[in-house]
Amino acid sequence: MADLYDPIRSDLREVARIFDGELVSDYKFVNALCDRVRAYRGKMLRPALLLLTGRACGQASVSHRTLGAVVEMVHVATLVHDDVLDEADERRGQTPINLLEGNVAAVLLGDYLISHAYHLCSSLKDQTAARLIGATTNSVCEGELLQNRHRGDAALSESLYFEIIERKTGALTATACELGALYSGADAKVVASLRSFGLAVGVAFQIVDDLLDIRGDRQEVGKSLGRDFSEGKLTLATIHCLANARRETVDALRGALAGHRKMSRAGLRGWLSETDSMEYATAVALEYISQARSSLEILPPSEARSSLTAMAEFIIERRL
Amino acid sequence: MADLYDPIRSDLREVARIFDGELVSDYKFVNALCDRVRAYRGKMLRPALLLLTGRACGQASVSHRTLGAVVEMVHVATLVHDDVLDEADERRGQTPINLLEGNVAAVLLGDYLISHAYHLCSSLKDQTAARLIGATTNSVCEGELLQNRHRGDAALSESLYFEIIERKTGALTATACELGALYSGADAKVVASLRSFGLAVGVAFQIVDDLLDIRGDRQEVGKSLGRDFSEGKLTLATIHCLANARRETVDALRGALAGHRKMSRAGLRGWLSETDSMEYATAVALEYISQARSSLEILPPSEARSSLTAMAEFIIERRL
Repeated sequence: MADLYDPIRSDLREVARIFDGELVSDYKFVNALCDRVRAYRGKMLRPALLLLTGRACGQASVSHRTLGAVVEMVHVATLVHDDVLDEADERRGQTPINLLEGNVAAVLLGDYLISHAYHLCSSLKDQTAARLIGATTNSVCEGELLQNRHRGDAALSESLYFEIIERKTGALTATACELGALYSGADAKVVASLRSFGLAVGVAFQIVDDLLDIRGDRQEVGKSLGRDFSEGKLTLATIHCLANARRETVDALRGALAGHRKMSRAGLRGWLSETDSMEYATAVALEYISQARSSLEILPPSEARSSLTAMAEFIIERRL
Repeated sequence: MADLYDPIRSDLREVARIFDGELVSDYKFVNALCDRVRAYRGKMLRPALLLLTGRACGQASVSHRTLGAVVEMVHVATLVHDDVLDEADERRGQTPINLLEGNVAAVLLGDYLISHAYHLCSSLKDQTAARLIGATTNSVCEGELLQNRHRGDAALSESLYFEIIERKTGALTATACELGALYSGADAKVVASLRSFGLAVGVAFQIVDDLLDIRGDRQEVGKSLGRDFSEGKLTLATIHCLANARRETVDALRGALAGHRKMSRAGLRGWLSETDSMEYATAVALEYISQARSSLEILPPSEARSSLTAMAEFIIERRL
């Protein structure tokens, strides 16, 4: 990761500075809450995509750095609310806000973060980014609502799964790349290609994230694992298995999903291996990464473009 | 109320149309959720303040109607999240979303509403409103966080109570009036006066709302009452009583607040009457209304200004 970020190292420091500056409150206890979410920031994938896309299309400006902080703040806000909704007990190796401070504080802190994200965005001269960020968060919320509606739904189709993850995860990475290109003055065709790149990267990232829930190492991943299926959330591998396994396996999975039977992560992996469903999901993620790489071909070669390619591949390699 | 709204009747219909249009989703179940929150809209106090202020300073434009929908959407979003946080069982005479659809859907629906509020706001030509709305929701969240932090705190001071309600309620009514004046091209002095008007009206409204929780009629008010004190939320009357009652009363109140003793609404009213604390809170609310009226004197007489005066008075009369 160190090398990939080389072209944007100082920009990312500036993003972190803008992020921290935006959240400063008159209230010490609010600042203490924000100190906790700073740990959620992790690798700043979304600002990195935005800055690298910006550089690959021209140069990264003050607006890029501000928008990097905006997309990261939106992302962190969704993590804080997700933890409340999922009752997670770990996030980036830390106890999440909801467990430390209660659900009420966590819901309000998520609201505080999203409010500041829009507030920061409105500091730009024009409305372009604000309009796009608003449309993106509309879409993220729809994805989350859709996922919630289909919790425990054994009949969830692959196409609906993709609709969910394109909205809840792909929309923001797509917008990060679109903004990067737009604010470097790229033409409409380049902007559209980079949006496709960001969407494909986001979708691949989510497929891999869902696979990690099934077979990742908790220490490495730094969050609670094995929760999706036990909370009724179907993902690509389990959907594939339900569609392709023999009758007994399908009945067992449906029974577990309906809460009639406990299912360990090892047990789930056992069922999924019958149909090579984890391999299937990995292959689909690789297909998205390949699509993402093609979308970059519209750009002239540059260090930033190489970093974008490497980032797309890194998503798969590091996490599988 | 019918007469007060006369100057803005058709504008308010347009606000409702914009509100509904903004929330339309590709997903039927999301539209069904939004149908439920439409009932939360009630009297549209905030858009009414914005439109009347606009008219009192000039004329109401397309921007005023859009901004009317924005402030109402922000308000409804806070109601949806409040109901989750307070575990309320009634809102405007209806079962709230969290009980009908679960807390997860309610948190997400609140997020969806706030996202659409900012999205709608970004449809305006300039950033002025977006910047102000962002700063306002920052403040609302701080007020809510502050309130949550002082839940059960028997030492909550009157000045901290005012800080909480100025932020959680006053900020949005103040901004509604400021936007109304700004988008009618009023000069800085008028804009500042109308912001003061909106702030005073919002603070008075919250004091009255808190009094209704203690002595209102559930049927009339249309929401769960008697919850503040039992959930550890001190309000002006209880703060006054704790500061002025004899030792035994203070001990009884502190004991109830700490959860050692149950306290009925009638019981609470009994303690408060010892120190005339409800009368004290009413007098303070009247003082704010009187301040609000003075802030309007900067405007030339008009039907809209008369409506603003009457609305300020109505807040006290209807609700006490």
